[in-house]
Amino acid sequence: MMRVPLEATYPARVTRQQREALNRHRSGVVYMTGLSGAGKSTLAAMVEQHLHAQGMRTYVLDGDELRQGLTRDLGFSDADRIENVRRVVEVARLMVDAGLIVITALISPFAADRQAARARFAASEFMEVFVDAPLAVCEERDPKGLYKRARRGELKGFTGIDSRYEPPSFADLRVDSARLTPHEACTAMLAGMAEFGFF
Amino acid sequence: MMRVPLEATYPARVTRQQREALNRHRSGVVYMTGLSGAGKSTLAAMVEQHLHAQGMRTYVLDGDELRQGLTRDLGFSDADRIENVRRVVEVARLMVDAGLIVITALISPFAADRQAARARFAASEFMEVFVDAPLAVCEERDPKGLYKRARRGELKGFTGIDSRYEPPSFADLRVDSARLTPHEACTAMLAGMAEFGFF
Repeated sequence: MMRVPLEATYPARVTRQQREALNRHRSGVVYMTGLSGAGKSTLAAMVEQHLHAQGMRTYVLDGDELRQGLTRDLGFSDADRIENVRRVVEVARLMVDAGLIVITALISPFAADRQAARARFAASEFMEVFVDAPLAVCEERDPKGLYKRARRGELKGFTGIDSRYEPPSFADLRVDSARLTPHEACTAMLAGMAEFGFF
Repeated sequence: MMRVPLEATYPARVTRQQREALNRHRSGVVYMTGLSGAGKSTLAAMVEQHLHAQGMRTYVLDGDELRQGLTRDLGFSDADRIENVRRVVEVARLMVDAGLIVITALISPFAADRQAARARFAASEFMEVFVDAPLAVCEERDPKGLYKRARRGELKGFTGIDSRYEPPSFADLRVDSARLTPHEACTAMLAGMAEFGFF
């Protein structure tokens, strides 16, 4: 049988730099953290709409949505939360390599996991944003009724109720999502991204 | 304390259609399957280089590389292989939603997993490619020395040696990577993608 061996060296892969040049913007990750109901998903969607309208390539990784797919085998134990964050961070890495500006919207309650997430990126490509609203505000908003269910004991290990949230000490940006309107919070995010060097 | 509730309805997310319009091409997945050494990674890299040079937004999900990150907790048991494929497919879904043409380079040995992968996509966005080279050819190439290690019993559960490969019955394209040169195989892939409707 005829056969031609494959070349001994793999052909070069398209590099992140080539993708950034094609997109005409940097890639990187905006890593949000905050309580359920603090406004992460809302803010992520608003910021992405703005970036997309400017012709940027973006994606939002939303923890709640991913639990229908990539992380659907995971629960809410500490170990599962750690693995949840780990997988989302790995997907963010791939997407940053693909040239996208990735916005992650996870509670990401543990400081150690956020440090581990940061360690997977260069300093210039990982921007941590604390979407900060007090528990009382988040619980009153309760957009999905989750706090009510947690208070009734129907949800176990709910962050802020019976699972801890460790507020970040080193966030690159804090967005006071209790005092700011969504529009103001979005503006603050975009200004923070500019200052961080995204554009 | 002042506070402004977030809007009751989430702001709209950027849609896949909007991303495709921005990119000026369709997104979708080219799902390769084939033995280790059949040439999947080589072909994926060549095809991606070509697409990128045409200004398309692409990404290669390479099973071997992902085992350093997203799937590094998984081994080579049947259960772990199934989970390995599942996670990569979920990432491919996210990237297709992000507007990319994704090329997956996994052995993906089991027909049921490939069917499950296909079921996660619309028919028009999932193209299965059988990168077909006989085991004897792959074993003689042995680009990473894995077959030698498997034959010595140092690697357990190696596809083709002591773990089964189920050749696809329904591939959208078969690339005879034993007889074709890499360049010819790449040309066949691109022609197949055009016929499938990618461009």
